[in-house]
Amino acid sequence: MHRFATFHATTLSVRLGPVFPGSMMDFPLTLAHVAARTERLFPSVEVVARKPDRSIERSSWGAVIRRARRLAAALTRAGLREGDRVATLQWNGLAHVEAYLGVPLAGGVCHPLNLRLHPDEFGYIASHARDRFLLVDDVLLPVLESIRAKAPFERIFVVQHTNAPLPAGCESYTSLLASAGSEFMAPQLDERSAASMCYTSGTTGRPKGVLYTHRSILLHSLSQALAGDAPIAQRDCVFAVAPMFHVNSWGFPYTAALMGAKLVLPGPHLDAESLLDLLDQERVTLTSGVPTIWVAIRDALRAQPGRWRLEPGLRAIVGGSALPESLLREMAELGVQLFHCWGMTETSPIGTYGHVKSTQADFDDEAKFKILARQGYASPLVELRHVDDAGRVLPWDDEAIGELQCRGPWIAGSYFNSHESDERWTADGWFRTGDVVAIDSEGVIRIVDRSKDLVKSGGEWISSVALENALMAHSGVREAAVIGVPHPKWQERPIAVVALRPGASATAEELQQFLAERFAKWQVPDAVVFVEALPRTGVGKVRKSELRERYREFPWS
Amino acid sequence: MHRFATFHATTLSVRLGPVFPGSMMDFPLTLAHVAARTERLFPSVEVVARKPDRSIERSSWGAVIRRARRLAAALTRAGLREGDRVATLQWNGLAHVEAYLGVPLAGGVCHPLNLRLHPDEFGYIASHARDRFLLVDDVLLPVLESIRAKAPFERIFVVQHTNAPLPAGCESYTSLLASAGSEFMAPQLDERSAASMCYTSGTTGRPKGVLYTHRSILLHSLSQALAGDAPIAQRDCVFAVAPMFHVNSWGFPYTAALMGAKLVLPGPHLDAESLLDLLDQERVTLTSGVPTIWVAIRDALRAQPGRWRLEPGLRAIVGGSALPESLLREMAELGVQLFHCWGMTETSPIGTYGHVKSTQADFDDEAKFKILARQGYASPLVELRHVDDAGRVLPWDDEAIGELQCRGPWIAGSYFNSHESDERWTADGWFRTGDVVAIDSEGVIRIVDRSKDLVKSGGEWISSVALENALMAHSGVREAAVIGVPHPKWQERPIAVVALRPGASATAEELQQFLAERFAKWQVPDAVVFVEALPRTGVGKVRKSELRERYREFPWS
Repeated sequence: MHRFATFHATTLSVRLGPVFPGSMMDFPLTLAHVAARTERLFPSVEVVARKPDRSIERSSWGAVIRRARRLAAALTRAGLREGDRVATLQWNGLAHVEAYLGVPLAGGVCHPLNLRLHPDEFGYIASHARDRFLLVDDVLLPVLESIRAKAPFERIFVVQHTNAPLPAGCESYTSLLASAGSEFMAPQLDERSAASMCYTSGTTGRPKGVLYTHRSILLHSLSQALAGDAPIAQRDCVFAVAPMFHVNSWGFPYTAALMGAKLVLPGPHLDAESLLDLLDQERVTLTSGVPTIWVAIRDALRAQPGRWRLEPGLRAIVGGSALPESLLREMAELGVQLFHCWGMTETSPIGTYGHVKSTQADFDDEAKFKILARQGYASPLVELRHVDDAGRVLPWDDEAIGELQCRGPWIAGSYFNSHESDERWTADGWFRTGDVVAIDSEGVIRIVDRSKDLVKSGGEWISSVALENALMAHSGVREAAVIGVPHPKWQERPIAVVALRPGASATAEELQQFLAERFAKWQVPDAVVFVEALPRTGVGKVRKSELRERYREFPWS
Repeated sequence: MHRFATFHATTLSVRLGPVFPGSMMDFPLTLAHVAARTERLFPSVEVVARKPDRSIERSSWGAVIRRARRLAAALTRAGLREGDRVATLQWNGLAHVEAYLGVPLAGGVCHPLNLRLHPDEFGYIASHARDRFLLVDDVLLPVLESIRAKAPFERIFVVQHTNAPLPAGCESYTSLLASAGSEFMAPQLDERSAASMCYTSGTTGRPKGVLYTHRSILLHSLSQALAGDAPIAQRDCVFAVAPMFHVNSWGFPYTAALMGAKLVLPGPHLDAESLLDLLDQERVTLTSGVPTIWVAIRDALRAQPGRWRLEPGLRAIVGGSALPESLLREMAELGVQLFHCWGMTETSPIGTYGHVKSTQADFDDEAKFKILARQGYASPLVELRHVDDAGRVLPWDDEAIGELQCRGPWIAGSYFNSHESDERWTADGWFRTGDVVAIDSEGVIRIVDRSKDLVKSGGEWISSVALENALMAHSGVREAAVIGVPHPKWQERPIAVVALRPGASATAEELQQFLAERFAKWQVPDAVVFVEALPRTGVGKVRKSELRERYREFPWS
C-alpha cells in the first residue's frame, strides 16, 4: 500500500499503484484479445466487400484474422518495431480490415491516409507521422504518385485488384503476406500503446495527428455495442459506409470484430444505387454515414420505389453534421431509423448517441422526433459540459449557448508531436471541441454551429445550421448551406447557397419568405445563390471554407 | 519512449509506460464517473424497493446518488481512510444501493456480509477483512448479535425500518447521513483501487476475500449492457433478485446506475408471490436469479393462472447452477425468456452469457433450446480454456472434459491477504474455476459438474448435473440432487435425493427406469431418497456437502 503519484522525466514516466489495490488480474485491453476472441468464437461470420471492379468478395472473420496475423508476422520480419507507423491508402475493403487489425497486432500503428486531401496536405501528414511502410490499393496508385516525393516510404506494398504490373519500387501485398513465416510471437503490449492514428483536417494551421490506443479502441468499441437503439450486436450485419480513412472508420471494423457481427464494406462505390444494392443483398441491419449520403439514398428510394427491399428495422447512425428533422422523418417513412451521433477525430470518434430515454417513452411521435433531431447525450465514460467565452460552465437549460468540451478515455489528451494547438485543452483537462451547443435538462446536446461557422451580424450570432435545417425542409431544396460573408455595414451577413431537387423550382424570394415564417427578420439570409451541387470535403461534409472564399466579395446591392 | 517493464518490491510496484504511447486522455474508470453520469442524465429514473414491512418505497437515481454522496462525506468525516472496509448486513434495499456507491466514492471498500452464513464463518470473514464500520438493517440486528463479539466493528450504523430503539453501541444511519457537512472533496482514485469485496463460501479451508476494483466493476458493467439477448439497456426495468450480499449483486446495481435503467429491489421478501407482485406492478423487463427461484415462480404461475400479468418479452439471467432445459422451455411457455450465465465470486461474477449466434439463426427451436440450455460463451474481455489433469489445453470438440480456466480484467488474480489457495492460479496466469466442462466448436461451455461434485464410480466419472437435469424433466419431480456416497465395491456410487411436486407421486424404481432410458446402466443412481425439500445454501444453491454428510453411511443392501 502506497500513495498514488505521477511524475514525469524526459525518459521515464512512473506511476505508483493505488493506495489499496484490488485483487483483480492485470489483463490489458488490447486488440490481441479482440483477434483471439473473434477467431475463436466467430470464425464463420462473414466479412463481405465490394471490389473496385464492382464484384463481391466474400470472406469470414476467421480468414480475415488469420491474414491479419500473417500481416503482423510479415511486417515484423520486414523490420517493423513497436510504435512504427504503417500508412494505408485504401478503400473500405478486406485488406484494409487486415491492416486495421494486423498492424497493431505487430505493435505498430495503423495510419489510414485520407485519399481525398490535397496532395500538399497529404504529403505533410505522411511525413509528419513518419510513416515507414505503406499499404496501397492498386487503383489508388495515381493518388500515391502525387505525394510519393514528399513522403519517402521505406517500402510500399500494393494490394492488387487488377492485373496491372507493379510500378517501380513497389512490392506485392500478397508476397508480403507469403513472407510471414510461421514463428511469429506477438508482442505483449501495454494497453496505453498507440494502435492507430488519424489526422484532423486542420481548419487552422497544419493537420494534427491523434494516436488512438489499444485501450481507447476497446473501450470505444464496448460503448458502440451497448444495448440501446443503435448498438452493434453479434446478430447484426454492419455496413461500414464511412470511409475507413475517416476518423478511424467510426470504430465499426473494431466493434464488429469484437462482437462477432457480420461486416460489409462498399469499396470505392459510394453512390446511392451501389449502397442500396448491398443494403438489400447482404440484409444489412445497421449502417452509418453523413447526412448527404442519406439525402442521396432517400432520393433513389423515391425515384425507384420497390426496387430495393431493405431489412425491416434497418438502423443508421448518422454523424458528421447536423441531421435535418425532415430527413429523419422521411427516412423513417422509408423504413430506415436514423440515429444521431456526435464526434470528431479527437473523440475516436463517437461521444454521444441520440436516444429517447425511458422517462420520455410516453411522449408522442412529434416530441420524439424533436429529441432524435438533436445530437444525443454522452456515451458512458464520456463527460460533457459547455462553457461561455470566459470559461464559465453553463447551465443545462437549452438556452445558454457555449463551446462543447469533453473528456473520457477515448478523447485525445494531446496531438502527436505538436504543441501548436495546446490551447485546445483547458487547464482542468477538458478538450475544447470547437462546436457551439446548447444542452437541455436531459443532457441532450443541440449543435448550434461550429464556432467558425456562426455568422456574426451586427454583434448578434446567427446559426447557419438552424437556417440550413429549415431550408432542407422545403420541398424543392435538395441541399443548402448558409455562410457568413463580409458586409460593409453589418460586419457579416448570411447568404444561402442552395441546390434544388431535380425538376423542382423555387425563387430566392420564395425561400426567404419560407424562412421568414420561422426566423427573426434579421436572421434571414440576404441572398440565395442557386448551384448545381455543394462542394464537399473528402468525407462528404459541405466545404464551407470554399463557399466563403467563392462569395467573399459579394455584390451587396 | 521506453521499454515496458514491471517489477515488484515490498513497498513499491512500478510500471513503466508503453514503448510508444497513444495521445488519449488519462481518464480513470471509476465509480465517480458512474455517479456523476447517473445523477446528471437520469435523475428521475426510479429506484424502487420493498421494505421489510412489505410496503413499497419509491425513490430515484437522483436521490439515491445524492444520499450516496452524503454517505461518502459522512464516512470520511467519521475517519474513513482510502481502502478502509465498510461492511453491510442488509437486504436488497435503497440504503444498500447507497452503500454500494457511497462507500467507494469515499475511497472505501464496500463489503456486503452474507447474512445466511454460519456465525463462525461470518465472524471470521468480518474480522479477516478488518471491517471498520458496519451498516446494518434493524431487522437484521439479531444476526449481528451472533457475531458482534467476534468482529469488533468500530462503529455500527443502523438503517431503521421499524420504531424499535437502537441497541447499545449502535448509531442511526439517518444521523450518520445528517453529519455529512457540505464541503466533501471526493478523492481522485486510481482505477485499480479496491471498491468492493466479497468472500467465497469456502468449500475447502477458510473463506477467501476477492477485492473488486473500480476498473473491474466498470468493465463488468459495460459487458452486462452489451447488445445481445439479455443486456441491461437504459429503457429496462431491472429487478435485482439475487441478494446483494451474493457475488457483488451480480453487478446489477452498478450496471443499472451506469446505464440509467430503473432498478427494483425485493427487500427480504423472496417468495414467489412477492416476486411476481413486483414483476407485475413495476413492469420489470429484466431480472435474474438461481434456477430454484424459477422453479418456485413456475409453480406459482401455474397454480394461479392469470393472476400476474408479466411484461411481454420479460428476460431473466439465470446462474448459480445449471438450468434444466425443461425449465427453460416451461418458462418460455409462460412468457419468460431465461438466459444462462456462468460465473462465481472470483469472476465479478459473470464470465459467459448464453446466446444463439447469428450463424445459428436458422436452427429450429429444438436446436436453439439445446444451445440455451448450455452455459454460453465468453463475454468480451473474458478468455476461457479447459485443461486436463496434466494441465494440457483441451480441444473444443464438446467431448473432451476438463477444468474450466479463465482470465480477464474482472477475474481475480489473487485472494485478499491469503496465500493459502495460490494453487488456484496457473503458472501462466489463468484462474482455475473448479468447474468441469466440455466446450463445443462454437466456444459454448457445458458444465459437467463442479470438480468436487463429480461421482467417481469404479474409476469412471459420472456427472451429477446431467442426472439432476434429467430427473427435473420428470413430471413428478420438483427438485433433485445427485451425490456420490462411499461404496464398498465401487469407491463411490450415485444416489438421488428427490423432492416431489405437491400432489405428485413416483417410486424409486419409476425414476430409475426413467433415467435408464437416457443413461448407461452404470450411471443410474443405485438409490432414490425422497425428502420434503433439499437443503440450500445462503444463496439458494443445493447444499450438497450436507447431503453427502447425511448419507455418508448409506445402507447398501
